[in-house]
Amino acid sequence: MTSAPAKSDIRPGEVTLDPNLVTQGDLTLTVIGHIRSPWSKGNCPKNLREARAQGGGFSIEIDAPYRPGLAGLKAGDAIVVLYWMDVARRDLIVQSPAHRTGPVGTFAVRSPARPNPIAMAVAHLLEIDVTKGVLQIDAIDAFEGTPVLDIKPWLASIDVPSTTAD
Amino acid sequence: MTSAPAKSDIRPGEVTLDPNLVTQGDLTLTVIGHIRSPWSKGNCPKNLREARAQGGGFSIEIDAPYRPGLAGLKAGDAIVVLYWMDVARRDLIVQSPAHRTGPVGTFAVRSPARPNPIAMAVAHLLEIDVTKGVLQIDAIDAFEGTPVLDIKPWLASIDVPSTTAD
Repeated sequence: MTSAPAKSDIRPGEVTLDPNLVTQGDLTLTVIGHIRSPWSKGNCPKNLREARAQGGGFSIEIDAPYRPGLAGLKAGDAIVVLYWMDVARRDLIVQSPAHRTGPVGTFAVRSPARPNPIAMAVAHLLEIDVTKGVLQIDAIDAFEGTPVLDIKPWLASIDVPSTTAD
Repeated sequence: MTSAPAKSDIRPGEVTLDPNLVTQGDLTLTVIGHIRSPWSKGNCPKNLREARAQGGGFSIEIDAPYRPGLAGLKAGDAIVVLYWMDVARRDLIVQSPAHRTGPVGTFAVRSPARPNPIAMAVAHLLEIDVTKGVLQIDAIDAFEGTPVLDIKPWLASIDVPSTTAD
């Protein structure tokens, strides 16, 4: 049994960015709410497929000023949740995830470690209370307390790749 | 014929956020590249479906330090592009898009105007040159020069809503 590498460690073949490139930029995000889940570092499902299979109670709490933005969403809708993986490192540009045999570019994998650690989860909205800002969803693979950035309706007409392109 | 409202205008029923809520937060983004498209404010397709129907030449240019992160992506892959809609206003929390009959919450629509103007586009990768950092894609509904935040592989196993939940 081996320990997970510390945040500053790298595995063979991994490549990191200059720290200046991680903190550059004047685009600043606003946190609109937080994810409520049973997951933390030790027990989080590896991906959304696994989270869906496990089931459980998951919700999103939207902060008061942003709750008017929920009007029009209803139970049964499919949504996209964008959230900020606030414990992920941002400097790994080539990485060796534990389940892969060799290093791979960060943009070819869904690892949390990426220059902008924004995750997307496609979920079903099971219940919504706009006044309280609470959305119950079928599954999510995010730690308890993860900051939420955006919610969008998921639309099959645009969120599935075109079948005509090849 | 009426002019489009100026950025600070609001339509009947629209609600804006306190400006302090738009600029709060210490989460800062890094721009990894830019979108090359023929679109600007006057001629941009309304959505990705329309952009796909129109076709044309679209590419993403990734800046040099981030290009190693492209290794492993190949022509034919479906990808998600996250980009920053840098000309969108961020203060509209209830809005009245021109094609709708009444106001609706920002999180129930795909409008560029939202607290964090992050758009996602699902595209086919037609060609990729990792060394030059150029990705040719089938379509995108973003203005020329739009900052790119992230590229991820699109995966049917997680990026389509679960069929078992209802």
